Amino acid sequence: MTQISMNNPILTFINVFTVEPENQNRLVELLTSATDVSVRYAKGFISSSLHRSLDGTKVTMYAQWRSEEEYNAMRSDPKPLPYLQEALKIAKFEPGMYEVVRTFEPAVE
Amino acid sequence: MTQISMNNPILTFINVFTVEPENQNRLVELLTSATDVSVRYAKGFISSSLHRSLDGTKVTMYAQWRSEEEYNAMRSDPKPLPYLQEALKIAKFEPGMYEVVRTFEPAVE
Repeated sequence: MTQISMNNPILTFINVFTVEPENQNRLVELLTSATDVSVRYAKGFISSSLHRSLDGTKVTMYAQWRSEEEYNAMRSDPKPLPYLQEALKIAKFEPGMYEVVRTFEPAVE
Repeated sequence: MTQISMNNPILTFINVFTVEPENQNRLVELLTSATDVSVRYAKGFISSSLHRSLDGTKVTMYAQWRSEEEYNAMRSDPKPLPYLQEALKIAKFEPGMYEVVRTFEPAVE
């Protein structure tokens, strides 16, 4: 399970894919396959979770990694490429590499 | 602390703000203030976390809510408006309302 907290020296990737609603399910399948055959086995991978927008137009991957070096090493693995190449045919990809700056809990009243 | 899991009947908002790097810190302050004065007190708010991109060009809020109705009710609160209006002067806002479809753990080898 993904846990988001501060003061945790990890790297967060929030990658937003924009897609036609009729291709959203296929995009979820492709990103799931890419993760299952490759990413989960990579050194430095902590966790990820895949989100589908309720309007059908986006799929967003929230992923935690130990370091940028390990993330880049994973990207040289050819196994997920067929899935990712098909994904990029049906989706626009907007990557982002982040650190967590603040977390908020409900106020206790 | 935010926990991302499947089969949890919650709503996830992943809101990406694009900003000039010189305004990124100010945007983090504004979104923090909006959350501290209002969002944290709203019925249905579960958790949120604020992320800054390492290249300086994005700030992304990952937020969990119990329902769309409660999220919309919060948006009628005028208290955070001064912060949000200033935020929208310096940033482009790309909202997204999601459900979690898959979570991935490292493979045990």
